[in-house]
Amino acid sequence: MLRRTGSDDGADLRTGDLLAGGLLAIVGEGSLLTGKALAERPRSYWDPEPLNARALVRPRSTEELGEVMRLCHRLRQPVVTHGGLTGCVQGTVVTDDEVVISLERMTAIEEIDSVGRTATVQAGAVLQNVQEAVARQNLYFPLDLGARGSCTIGGNIATNAGGINVIRYGMMRELVLGLEVVLADGTVVSSMNRMLKNNSGYDLKQMFIGSEGTLGIITRAVLRLREATVSRNTAMLALNSFASVVGLLQFMGRALGGGLSAYEVMWGDYFRAVTEPGWHRAPMDRDYPFYVIAEATGADEETDAAQFISCLERAAGDGLVADAVIPKSAGERAALWGIREDFEAVVQLKPTFLYDVSLPIKDMDEYINDVTAGLRRRWPEGQCHVIGHIGDGNLHLFVSPGTSGERLHAEADEEVYGPLSRFGGSVSAEHGIGLEKKRWLPTSRSPTEIALMQLLKRTLDPHNLLNRRMIFDA
Amino acid sequence: MLRRTGSDDGADLRTGDLLAGGLLAIVGEGSLLTGKALAERPRSYWDPEPLNARALVRPRSTEELGEVMRLCHRLRQPVVTHGGLTGCVQGTVVTDDEVVISLERMTAIEEIDSVGRTATVQAGAVLQNVQEAVARQNLYFPLDLGARGSCTIGGNIATNAGGINVIRYGMMRELVLGLEVVLADGTVVSSMNRMLKNNSGYDLKQMFIGSEGTLGIITRAVLRLREATVSRNTAMLALNSFASVVGLLQFMGRALGGGLSAYEVMWGDYFRAVTEPGWHRAPMDRDYPFYVIAEATGADEETDAAQFISCLERAAGDGLVADAVIPKSAGERAALWGIREDFEAVVQLKPTFLYDVSLPIKDMDEYINDVTAGLRRRWPEGQCHVIGHIGDGNLHLFVSPGTSGERLHAEADEEVYGPLSRFGGSVSAEHGIGLEKKRWLPTSRSPTEIALMQLLKRTLDPHNLLNRRMIFDA
Repeated sequence: MLRRTGSDDGADLRTGDLLAGGLLAIVGEGSLLTGKALAERPRSYWDPEPLNARALVRPRSTEELGEVMRLCHRLRQPVVTHGGLTGCVQGTVVTDDEVVISLERMTAIEEIDSVGRTATVQAGAVLQNVQEAVARQNLYFPLDLGARGSCTIGGNIATNAGGINVIRYGMMRELVLGLEVVLADGTVVSSMNRMLKNNSGYDLKQMFIGSEGTLGIITRAVLRLREATVSRNTAMLALNSFASVVGLLQFMGRALGGGLSAYEVMWGDYFRAVTEPGWHRAPMDRDYPFYVIAEATGADEETDAAQFISCLERAAGDGLVADAVIPKSAGERAALWGIREDFEAVVQLKPTFLYDVSLPIKDMDEYINDVTAGLRRRWPEGQCHVIGHIGDGNLHLFVSPGTSGERLHAEADEEVYGPLSRFGGSVSAEHGIGLEKKRWLPTSRSPTEIALMQLLKRTLDPHNLLNRRMIFDA
Repeated sequence: MLRRTGSDDGADLRTGDLLAGGLLAIVGEGSLLTGKALAERPRSYWDPEPLNARALVRPRSTEELGEVMRLCHRLRQPVVTHGGLTGCVQGTVVTDDEVVISLERMTAIEEIDSVGRTATVQAGAVLQNVQEAVARQNLYFPLDLGARGSCTIGGNIATNAGGINVIRYGMMRELVLGLEVVLADGTVVSSMNRMLKNNSGYDLKQMFIGSEGTLGIITRAVLRLREATVSRNTAMLALNSFASVVGLLQFMGRALGGGLSAYEVMWGDYFRAVTEPGWHRAPMDRDYPFYVIAEATGADEETDAAQFISCLERAAGDGLVADAVIPKSAGERAALWGIREDFEAVVQLKPTFLYDVSLPIKDMDEYINDVTAGLRRRWPEGQCHVIGHIGDGNLHLFVSPGTSGERLHAEADEEVYGPLSRFGGSVSAEHGIGLEKKRWLPTSRSPTEIALMQLLKRTLDPHNLLNRRMIFDA
């Protein structure tokens, strides 16, 4: 294998045998996969092609991973970290000369402290497993997103995941108290703080959260929990204009105090696509321009329900709400959420490109009108389906050109990102940059900012071993 | 002046005239203070001695400050940044060969966006001025602390300030969306993001928040605002045990949902000291072991008040609350808060050393008993007054030895920090490390963590020009 030659001690050690032998000695046979065993795995949730890499190691502990990275550092072996593989920006793509570090054997939920309200977990723990373990202790971990059954806590932290409860509880960054990380040279940095407040020196974990595995490999975390909420009130609402969407958000925000926990908007085209015959059952007329799922949680079953209904009645009286459906059971609630979270009907159109932008709420309607008009001009047969965490300033677009061509993705990028800079928007609200949006990073960040990112990367990973192709060129 | 000699281009330029002349050319006469003009200023809120430094500059803009730092960088001139000077850890102490950068002329509140709920402000803006400007637009900025009338937004960010509303809204870090910073070499890094979600590349601002001016000088920020709350319910409560303090916190947290915004605890000794004749009027019997000020805010004047009262009645019925006072006017509420926030009666004892530790809530009672027993053995005439943001795991101790001696502060440190490590506590919850706690940083952070902090510092400020003596030795 062709490799760069360095000037230091590692240079003459770079042979495949040394690497394979070294990894085997550290993790043992069952934890080192190559060739066929690798090819039996898909590349990601989105890409069923067989995985191809130099090797895949699945360490059982932070210490094992530290040894793995010491070896890789010595041999200048680049690695790519894998969690649940549900990310949307090609952040886990591997080349055949890279080694995959999979956290799949580090899934322990080590401790749940119900007085201090913390959970200590390994990075490979699946989000839903953590949510459920915590709920059994009558506590609540607020991060929630459609991929909950596959995505891992480590991936959630590395990408600073968002999801449906950000409006009330913030993104993953605000839910992490402590972090343990393995650096590129194998050094273990343990900052497993358990306290809400700790201003003793730099808060090092902040550097790793959201850096997409380019500065260190997350191995363990202390998560911040909340008391379990008692009440949960949900409604699916139909609205006649985007002005009503914004007006209702402000209205519910004020009327429910801090109780509003989700406010998910679906543009009419999206709602109609996922409620076509054979997909989800439409709980109301399908011809409104906007639909919202609103949810509030609280401490009192009875008064919260009354407050929620009264709030919606007043909103309807003010003309903000055109129609409303309130689920009468957990099953009905799940069916409503299914319309928002299960977008198979949309992504079955091939190809479909998923976008994740943020911009000021006041500009969203104009922005979407601009983008859809541009797409219609370019691809008259194409479709664009839009949903959004509006309260967070975050929109997702599914762009389906309805045609074939070499440059479709790049052309869709131009249509979606082109109008964005006019509104001071960001090319990534919650998905990250990965490989997919690298070319568009300068749209959202200045040359000075990118230079500072590169300086940090070179400082922590001077040989560019960790997710080396992601976010920007080091 | 004696200076280190370097090997690069700046070496032969290091004369006082070049510095003074250069600064004068950049900021103009009225913005450059030396000698007598400096000595007319106190060193800080806590230290009335005359300020002594090589010079003080007060730039009017980010551009001016950038030029100042380019000059200082070229001349290898160390600087110390001054905001409101209310910090508690000697984080603004200057030596006579350092230049003070004061943000006192950068106080503008540039924009309040009531739809996007953001405020764009310069770093020298005083917290209370920001709170009030925002309130006039029917919005709310949640950071609040006793020093609100003097402390600045820049200082709040540099120290990741906490205060009385952390339990509900988080620390300053969670309230900052965008940041502009001048680096040691004068580079301006502008990350003035206005969106709740932005995962496009590293979140650079996180590195500067809480780094106490050692990595960059904060010049502007975009702050996250909330809707103004309608209701505000306050009570002062007397409790018979620390178990009740913890029990009531959990009880109110559950009963009021997310509404509980402050839960401030005063140990009996503190309460009695500040309600001695001549100080504050005691609104209830003075012989309880614990007092709490609890406050909740919400969206509905009437139902919130009913819920708050009903919650306290049930808590009293459960034996958690021994006595309660509910203020009947804004004046009465302010008087209750005065007992918690105005600790003149305590700090008039000279010397008095202020501490700010965090530790798991379940260990607090034992910890305080340990510390006070140790202090009593050492200084039988001494006093220790304790208050705390209990919900955040944060305690403040005022230690007054009641005697004189050379090593009093170091001895008090030993008594307070000694027992802390047994509980996995932190030597700084919200005040930072500054110069005062530098020696104790290794109690809370590992050698690996400190080495990583030093690496970051050397990377961003290779000549160690910014607050060079703070937090750790670079």
